[in-house]
Amino acid sequence: MSRLTVDLNCDMGESFGAYAIGQDEALLDLVTSANIACGLHAGDPQVMQKTVKMALLKNVAIGAHPGLPDLAGFGRREIKISPDEAYALVVYQIGALWGFIQAEGGTLHHVKPHGALYNMAAVNATLAEAIAEAVYKVNPNLILYGLAQSELIKAGDKLGLKTAHEVFADRSYRPDGTLTPRQHPQAHITNPEVAAQQVLNMVQTGKVQTTDQQEITLITDTICIHGDGPLAVTFAKRIKEVLLQAGVVLKAI
Amino acid sequence: MSRLTVDLNCDMGESFGAYAIGQDEALLDLVTSANIACGLHAGDPQVMQKTVKMALLKNVAIGAHPGLPDLAGFGRREIKISPDEAYALVVYQIGALWGFIQAEGGTLHHVKPHGALYNMAAVNATLAEAIAEAVYKVNPNLILYGLAQSELIKAGDKLGLKTAHEVFADRSYRPDGTLTPRQHPQAHITNPEVAAQQVLNMVQTGKVQTTDQQEITLITDTICIHGDGPLAVTFAKRIKEVLLQAGVVLKAI
Amino acid sequence: MSRLTVDLNCDMGESFGAYAIGQDEALLDLVTSANIACGLHAGDPQVMQKTVKMALLKNVAIGAHPGLPDLAGFGRREIKISPDEAYALVVYQIGALWGFIQAEGGTLHHVKPHGALYNMAAVNATLAEAIAEAVYKVNPNLILYGLAQSELIKAGDKLGLKTAHEVFADRSYRPDGTLTPRQHPQAHITNPEVAAQQVLNMVQTGKVQTTDQQEITLITDTICIHGDGPLAVTFAKRIKEVLLQAGVVLKAI
Amino acid sequence: MSRLTVDLNCDMGESFGAYAIGQDEALLDLVTSANIACGLHAGDPQVMQKTVKMALLKNVAIGAHPGLPDLAGFGRREIKISPDEAYALVVYQIGALWGFIQAEGGTLHHVKPHGALYNMAAVNATLAEAIAEAVYKVNPNLILYGLAQSELIKAGDKLGLKTAHEVFADRSYRPDGTLTPRQHPQAHITNPEVAAQQVLNMVQTGKVQTTDQQEITLITDTICIHGDGPLAVTFAKRIKEVLLQAGVVLKAI
Repeated sequence: MSRLTVDLNCDMGESFGAYAIGQDEALLDLVTSANIACGLHAGDPQVMQKTVKMALLKNVAIGAHPGLPDLAGFGRREIKISPDEAYALVVYQIGALWGFIQAEGGTLHHVKPHGALYNMAAVNATLAEAIAEAVYKVNPNLILYGLAQSELIKAGDKLGLKTAHEVFADRSYRPDGTLTPRQHPQAHITNPEVAAQQVLNMVQTGKVQTTDQQEITLITDTICIHGDGPLAVTFAKRIKEVLLQAGVVLKAI
Repeated sequence: MSRLTVDLNCDMGESFGAYAIGQDEALLDLVTSANIACGLHAGDPQVMQKTVKMALLKNVAIGAHPGLPDLAGFGRREIKISPDEAYALVVYQIGALWGFIQAEGGTLHHVKPHGALYNMAAVNATLAEAIAEAVYKVNPNLILYGLAQSELIKAGDKLGLKTAHEVFADRSYRPDGTLTPRQHPQAHITNPEVAAQQVLNMVQTGKVQTTDQQEITLITDTICIHGDGPLAVTFAKRIKEVLLQAGVVLKAI
Repeated sequence: MSRLTVDLNCDMGESFGAYAIGQDEALLDLVTSANIACGLHAGDPQVMQKTVKMALLKNVAIGAHPGLPDLAGFGRREIKISPDEAYALVVYQIGALWGFIQAEGGTLHHVKPHGALYNMAAVNATLAEAIAEAVYKVNPNLILYGLAQSELIKAGDKLGLKTAHEVFADRSYRPDGTLTPRQHPQAHITNPEVAAQQVLNMVQTGKVQTTDQQEITLITDTICIHGDGPLAVTFAKRIKEVLLQAGVVLKAI
Repeated sequence: MSRLTVDLNCDMGESFGAYAIGQDEALLDLVTSANIACGLHAGDPQVMQKTVKMALLKNVAIGAHPGLPDLAGFGRREIKISPDEAYALVVYQIGALWGFIQAEGGTLHHVKPHGALYNMAAVNATLAEAIAEAVYKVNPNLILYGLAQSELIKAGDKLGLKTAHEVFADRSYRPDGTLTPRQHPQAHITNPEVAAQQVLNMVQTGKVQTTDQQEITLITDTICIHGDGPLAVTFAKRIKEVLLQAGVVLKAI
C-alpha cells in the first residue's frame, strides 16, 4: 500500500576531536530526523552538543544513535556482546545524548542503533529484545527505529514501543529483506537517480527490487540518507525533490 | 559553628570490565550518598547499572561523578581542557548516569566531579563556572558537591544551584584549604582514629588542623569516605560510629 | 608420544593504570615463559616495562601477547576483524613490547595471541595466516604459540616459523581439540589435583580426556597456566610439583 | 651562520579508522623525513603500516612521532604525566612503529615527540630527560628531533644522542624561542611566501624574527612542514622551491 507521508533520517554527529566527517549542517536542512552518534563508535561530547543545537535550531527530530564501543572500526565491526552488555551500552548512550538535549531544552524523539549493532539486532532476537528493553526502560515514549520488518522492530512492538520500519535510499537489498553487506560490490547505489527512484517506489508501493531482481514488500516508515561520502548532500537533495514532486509529505514520525 | 547533621559520601562504581576495584556493596551500607563513576575515568555501562541498582536498593542518594577522559590515569592526571570541553564532558557523563537511574525508576540527587577535574575546578574559576553551568543546564535542582569553600562551590552558588561543601576524612589539608596532593608523604591519613577525629572535629567545630598545625575554618556539609584501598570499609565504619556516638545525624543533603 | 621436557607459560602484565590484576611476581618464579599483554586488551606501557624487567630478572622467556583492541572486554569478545586488521594489530603489539625488551637488553622469544584472537586464529585459517605472517615479518626467529594442532600452528608451520603446541592445565577440551568455551559450566577445572593430573597425562601420553570422556591426542609443547583468579599460584605450584616429581624437565622452548 | 643543507620533515600517518586526515602521499614527495604517529594521539596500526610502506617507497627517512594518549585531543592537550609515564609511553610508541618498519625491511631514523608532549619536553628538563632516555635505551643511534635549543635537545645531547634542532615554517616565534601557542591569533603563518621566506632566512642566517619584531638566533637542522590543513601541500611545495632556488641541499640528517 502506498504512503503519502514519510520521514527522512540521517546519521550525524560522527566527527571526533580533530577528525571531521560528514556534512551535518547541510543535511539538517534536508532531513526530518537526525540520529546523533553518542561517543562510543563516533562523536564526542562537544560534537554531540553542537549537533543537538543545530538540530533543534532547524526543527529536526533528534534520535540517539548508539553503537558498539569501537571507534577504530566506526562501530561497523561485529563484537560478540551479550544481551546484558547491549542493554547497558544502549542505556548509557541514550542517557549521554539526553544530557545535551535536556541542556538545550529539547526532546529526545527516537533511538536507532548504529552499524554492526543495528545489523546484529536485525537478525538476533535476544539482542534485539535487550536493546528494545533499554529504550523502553529509559523512556517508553521513545520511538525505536530499526531495519524494516526486522527482529529489532518485532522486539519493540512486543514491548509496546512505537516503532519505525527503516529503508535505505542508497543500499541494495537481499531477498530476505536485509541489506547487502558493505563489502559487496553491489551494496551501494551510487547513482542518485536510481536511489531516488528506489525510495519513491518504496514509499508509493511498499516494495523494493532485490539484487536478484525479485520484488519484496518493505514497510517504509522512514528513509535513511547517508551523511558520509562526498555525494551525501547531492543524494539527499535529489531524493527529497523526487519525493516532494510526487506529493509525498516529509515529516518526522 | 557545629552541625548536627552531615552527609557521608563515597565514590564508587569504579570497576571496569574484568578489573574490579572498591568494596561498593559494603560501603553502600555505611554512607548516605554515592558518587558513581560515569565511564570516562572509571566505570563502564554494566558497572554503572549495577551500582545504581544497589544504591537504590539501599536508599543511598545517587550522584554523578564525572571525570576526565583518562582511564589510564584514573582521572587523576590534570589534562588542560578548555571550559567548553569541561562543560560538554560533564553534561555527557551526567546524562549517561541519568539513563541508568531513569531505567531503574530513581532520581539523580547530585553531581561531584572526580579527581583532577575536582581539583582543577576547586581553584580555576572559569573551569568551575563551566562545570556548574553543565549541572545547572541539565537540571537546576541537582546539588553540586565540591571542595569546601572552593571556586566550584562559588560557581554553583552564583548560578543558584544548591551546593554542598565537601571535606575529607582521610586526607590532610593545606593552609589554603586545598588538599595536600596525593604524592605528598602526609597526604593520606592512614589511622582510622585520626580520620574519625578529624571528621568529628570538622562537623562539631567547622575547623580542621592543617599540615603545618594551623587551624582553618571549613564548612562541612558532606564528608568524603574513600572507597578504594584495603581499609576503606574499616575507615568508613569507624567514622560512622564516632559520628553516631557523638549524636550527629547522618543523612543525604 | 610422551615428552620429558615441557614449557610452562603464563599470561601476565594484565594490570592497567590503577587496576591491578594477576600475581605476576609469584608466577614468574614458577613458569618458564611469560606472555606479556601489549596494551590493547590489557596492560599499559608502565606495566609492560615492569613486567619485562621482572621476567628478565627471573630468567623467564618473554613472549608478546597481542589481543583485540577491547580493554572493556579484556580481549575476550570476538570482533570481526579482517586479516589485514589482524596483521597490523599483531605487528603493532609485538613492536610495542619489543621496545621495552630492547630497552632492557633482553630478547623477544615468542608470540602468543590472547583470548578471542587466539580462539579465532585456532579455527579461522585466513586469520591465522595473517597473524603468522605478522610474526614472521617482524622476526622469522620468533616462536609462535597456538592452540595445539590448530589452524594457527598450521599457518606458522607453513611459513617456516618454529611453533609451540599449547595445552591448558585448567580448561577442559571438546572432542575436536578446542577449549570448552568460558561460559560453559565445565569449562574450567577448579581442582588443582585434577589440573595437575591432566597436565601430567598430556606430557607423558600426549593425550587428554574430553568433556564427553573421549581420549584425544594433543601435541604438548607448552602448558598454559592462568595468572588470574585467586588460586592461580596454588595451581601453578601444584602443577610444577607434579611434573618435577614425574621427572619432567621444565624449560622454555 | 648559514647552512647549505637542511632536512624537511612532516608529521603524518595521523588518520584513524574511518577518519582521514592529511595528505601524506603528496607530502612524501616533498619532504626528506617523516614523523609517523604511533596510535596514541593519532594513527592506527593499519595507517602506520601503510605510511611506513609509502615512506620507504619514496626514500623518506622514517621517524617515530610519539604523543600523549589522547585521541580526543589529538595529543595537543597537556596531560600532567610523570617522567616515568613519559618514558614508558615513548618506548611503547617507538617500539610499535619499529614493528612495521622491521616488517618492511626498513630502518628507524629518528624520534620526534608530538604536540603537547613536544612542547612540555621543550621546557621541562625532567620530562625531556625521560624522553631522551627512552629513545637512547631503545636504540642509541636514533636521532632525537626537538624544538631548536630546547630542553629536549639538551637532554639528548647530554646522553650522547645525535639531535636535530627543529624550526617551523608556518608558526611564529616568541622572544624565548618557543612557538606562539596555537590559540594565539598570530600563531600560524598563513601566507606561503612569508613561511618560505622565514624558512630561507633561518637556513641562511640562523635567525628568525619573533612576534615582537626581535631577531633571535635559531639553530636550524630540520624544518617542520605541517601536513594538515587544506594548504599543506601548497606550503610544502613553495618552501621546497624557495630553498632549492637558493641552492640549499635538502636531505635527511
